Amino acid sequence: MFPAPEGVRGIGDDCAVIPRSDGVDTLVSTDLLTEGVHFLRHRIEPRELGWKAAAVNLSDIAAMGGKPVDTFLSLAIPKDCDEGFIAQMMEGYADASRHYGTPLLGGDTCASADALTLNVTVLGECPHGKALLRSAALPGDAIYVTGTLGDSAAGLKALLEALPETPLTQALIRRHYHPVPRIAEGQQIAACTKAGAAMDLSDGLASDLRHILKASGCGASIDLKALPLSPELLDFCREYGADPLELALCGGEDYELLFTLRPGCAPPLPCSCIGRITSGKQLIWEGSERDFKGFEHF
Amino acid sequence: MFPAPEGVRGIGDDCAVIPRSDGVDTLVSTDLLTEGVHFLRHRIEPRELGWKAAAVNLSDIAAMGGKPVDTFLSLAIPKDCDEGFIAQMMEGYADASRHYGTPLLGGDTCASADALTLNVTVLGECPHGKALLRSAALPGDAIYVTGTLGDSAAGLKALLEALPETPLTQALIRRHYHPVPRIAEGQQIAACTKAGAAMDLSDGLASDLRHILKASGCGASIDLKALPLSPELLDFCREYGADPLELALCGGEDYELLFTLRPGCAPPLPCSCIGRITSGKQLIWEGSERDFKGFEHF
Repeated sequence: MFPAPEGVRGIGDDCAVIPRSDGVDTLVSTDLLTEGVHFLRHRIEPRELGWKAAAVNLSDIAAMGGKPVDTFLSLAIPKDCDEGFIAQMMEGYADASRHYGTPLLGGDTCASADALTLNVTVLGECPHGKALLRSAALPGDAIYVTGTLGDSAAGLKALLEALPETPLTQALIRRHYHPVPRIAEGQQIAACTKAGAAMDLSDGLASDLRHILKASGCGASIDLKALPLSPELLDFCREYGADPLELALCGGEDYELLFTLRPGCAPPLPCSCIGRITSGKQLIWEGSERDFKGFEHF
Repeated sequence: MFPAPEGVRGIGDDCAVIPRSDGVDTLVSTDLLTEGVHFLRHRIEPRELGWKAAAVNLSDIAAMGGKPVDTFLSLAIPKDCDEGFIAQMMEGYADASRHYGTPLLGGDTCASADALTLNVTVLGECPHGKALLRSAALPGDAIYVTGTLGDSAAGLKALLEALPETPLTQALIRRHYHPVPRIAEGQQIAACTKAGAAMDLSDGLASDLRHILKASGCGASIDLKALPLSPELLDFCREYGADPLELALCGGEDYELLFTLRPGCAPPLPCSCIGRITSGKQLIWEGSERDFKGFEHF
């Protein structure tokens, strides 16, 4: 129903890619966060909610290797949400805006019958034709991720199960509430002439990798022993009897980058090689008999 | 908290205005529509809801004299909203997209705990420095509106009071559900070297004119006898005992353009002169002792 015009990439990637006449491609991403689905209003610090709303959108620009430029925020505010909450939430949003140099240029504020709802639109840019796409993986590519996986999911588990507040659980909860968009990393990948596909990890590797495989028409083999797991995640799993693989593969909201590079290319940034793209359609988890699925929001 | 960078117009107008290096200004508008506040899901045809969500955003680009280029849609869908409703709503959105040549290039779809919520972002453009602003009215300017005022408010009244379905009420209800963004008209105004301020009428003339007066630091005198009222509105008011001035000034969602032209400039399009900008800060309603306020959503 919604064909994109010639030369424009519309629905199906982390951002739309719109060529301009000045040799720059405009990148656009939009994401809606609503109470009871993406966050629990009475369990999140408002300042963290504001940060997170901005950060997860900036992460979509990072996923394309772009530079985020400016943002737009729509807010639907229920009657029982006080001004102090909104003011602190906007402080968190402003923290992210300042930190990443992405001014808030507009938006909309209205009443909500029930749920606090935020919609963020981010505009970014990259040199024409240089955006990293989900569809650009080729058989033989090595598969990488930045950072570590599963920390955010462990933090969410600590929150939902009201586990004791310790330095360990607090560090993981912070990973859940305070995602760091990998903007510089995305640009480093995009600048690499041997880059393949890329996206950001919002729904868990098991789910997100499938998007790349589908868009690229490939399969993959993932070495489970190579997954980057933080010492905090491993401590947490020992202490609370959780499965690190489950958290790392099926937990969401890491906002790390998942990307591929052509064979023999040295990665231009610190990252972990976790497998390779194959010519079949299968996704193989080396080291386990299990299959893994992605993350479901509340 | 949110300063715009040098040369960029951020919060405070119908759109943000962002200069590019190719001599074009990008215009961005974003609006959130949520059930129970902006529409009643069980009282609106889904196809009309889809049209309206697109049209009211395109109207913001029209208000700046710009050309809308593409759109982005976020949807939060409650469990009790069936696929048929969403499919028809998307048909209405696609109708508007085709009609105005503004492809849908991306978005987000998620669950909602309660209310059906749509957020539309529209990108548009205009030649550098040519966007029509709310702040550009000067004392002595003549004040104009396109079309007729109050029809949408009469249609809403017919809906909310479940008035009998007649050709008259149906025509007015259609004006409420099927707003027509004044895109060509906005561009004609922007092309006029003697154009002043402009905005679209979403909350009623009594409310929206005050935004222009505040942004421009002026007052105005409005000739109530000069307000363009449709024969349908007058018939409706006679039949159902409503006040046409109340509907025309305080009713919302006409999506006509309100604009000013420097003295002695012939308007470049069909429109009605309804008053003039004055150097005081007062808003005077010539022909009435009453004051008029704007429209409140549900």
